[in-house]
Amino acid sequence: VIKRLAIVGVGLIGGSFALALRRAGVVETVVGYGRSAANLETAQRMGILDAVTTTVAEAVQDADLVCIAAPVGAVPGLLAEIAPALHDDAIIIDVGSTKQGVIAAARAALETHTRIGQFVPCHPIAGAEDSGAAAARTELFQGRAVIVTPLPENTAATLARVTALWQACGARVTLMEAAHHDRIFAAVSHLPHLAAFALVAELASRPEAETFFLHAGSGFRDFTRIAASHPEMWRDIALANRDALLTELDAYQAQLATLRTLLATNDRERLSELFARASHARRSLTLTLDKS
Amino acid sequence: VIKRLAIVGVGLIGGSFALALRRAGVVETVVGYGRSAANLETAQRMGILDAVTTTVAEAVQDADLVCIAAPVGAVPGLLAEIAPALHDDAIIIDVGSTKQGVIAAARAALETHTRIGQFVPCHPIAGAEDSGAAAARTELFQGRAVIVTPLPENTAATLARVTALWQACGARVTLMEAAHHDRIFAAVSHLPHLAAFALVAELASRPEAETFFLHAGSGFRDFTRIAASHPEMWRDIALANRDALLTELDAYQAQLATLRTLLATNDRERLSELFARASHARRSLTLTLDKS
Repeated sequence: VIKRLAIVGVGLIGGSFALALRRAGVVETVVGYGRSAANLETAQRMGILDAVTTTVAEAVQDADLVCIAAPVGAVPGLLAEIAPALHDDAIIIDVGSTKQGVIAAARAALETHTRIGQFVPCHPIAGAEDSGAAAARTELFQGRAVIVTPLPENTAATLARVTALWQACGARVTLMEAAHHDRIFAAVSHLPHLAAFALVAELASRPEAETFFLHAGSGFRDFTRIAASHPEMWRDIALANRDALLTELDAYQAQLATLRTLLATNDRERLSELFARASHARRSLTLTLDKS
Repeated sequence: VIKRLAIVGVGLIGGSFALALRRAGVVETVVGYGRSAANLETAQRMGILDAVTTTVAEAVQDADLVCIAAPVGAVPGLLAEIAPALHDDAIIIDVGSTKQGVIAAARAALETHTRIGQFVPCHPIAGAEDSGAAAARTELFQGRAVIVTPLPENTAATLARVTALWQACGARVTLMEAAHHDRIFAAVSHLPHLAAFALVAELASRPEAETFFLHAGSGFRDFTRIAASHPEMWRDIALANRDALLTELDAYQAQLATLRTLLATNDRERLSELFARASHARRSLTLTLDKS
């Protein structure tokens, strides 16, 4: 049982994590820290938090579990601030969508103060367009995957403890190497977000934007849903995973350029081939994906 | 009441149109023509068709309403084949996603044989990834928009008759100029399909494709759903609306290139701005779109 859980950044993920652990009966007190007083107030009203603090150091003092759930760009600064205040036995996790940058920041901040082995990098695959404490819900992680990218310094006991916590939230835990994680998510998550942001931003900049959107059907709705995501959170993710993402963006632009040539030269056959390859691949995924 | 309805191309749209008109009690006999005998058999078993014909000319003979619901690339050839066989008073509609090309084909085929004014170009906004008669359902058009791009030769009586038929299917009819229609749908439908096909085709071509797809979350699922669409149907749409689509594709690629520069140069501020513009625009659409 966790006596004191500190949530640093009480949004969709941090808030849902607290709610899920409460429901599982494995946490006694939850303390929260965040930038927005209004958001923290919402979190208290929703029963996510027992108390809020005005500094992040105060929040983590005496905590036996610290969950850093702020946008990844804010994580290095937060880690530096909390490091001197951490309890010796505290376990620290983050929930960011990129892992190599966070790990480097954790090494920089924690190695001199406490054992870096108590930091466990996590990535729950449970994003949504909605953000803030108001969007948090107990069931968010139910049946979802959480990817843990362990450090060589993590002990088996620490990893087992963090795994058990995610399982208590209803999630299944997968282990993966951090660089591999970042490359995979550049392709299947970060690039699609960028592609959707770009398409909607481009249309929104036109004088006829409203007429265009008025006629959008269900295909447009699904394709662009992720473009409603939190701008700062995604700016941070894009910059934190910049190298892998630039590689993906280049591959995507090259594929679009190929497609443009096929279209401009009326190449029916190769256009069919390209569409068929995509359609076949996406259909083979339907059973797996559309159930989750 | 329609005594004899001919469905040319008995897929999702053609099949659902027949089912909806039957349910509304405004059609007596439905005859179908299509390339696939297995698909026509399914349509008969589902009660979509009363009879099938082996030639398209046979299907439209004595029909008072002809619905051409084949991929747009096949429409010119079909129109040329049916023109000599059409009943003098027959109304002909199509349901293609692009309108200028179909209208040109209809003029070429129908002007010498019958009154071009009896051809009414329609576009029901009710696509789906599933295709074929098996995907047809009575409720497909319920609450959906159908865009009609009238010809100057259409009489008010003909337009009123076609409008009433779509309304009997539960749809609402909007009138629009054909060129305007094609430009709007290049932006909000054809480009998103191309963008999704390109992304999935690119990932599917990698040796690690399976690992990538295994870790795809709900964002990827929604973003790529339209990449499961019918390859030939979308090849035809892309080629039929090529000029407008190339313009959209160029604007999209320019926006992606801008985004790439912002990312490569670590431009936090303008990256936030671009994402925020997209997020704001998409959020303002949520109420309208996610209800449909």
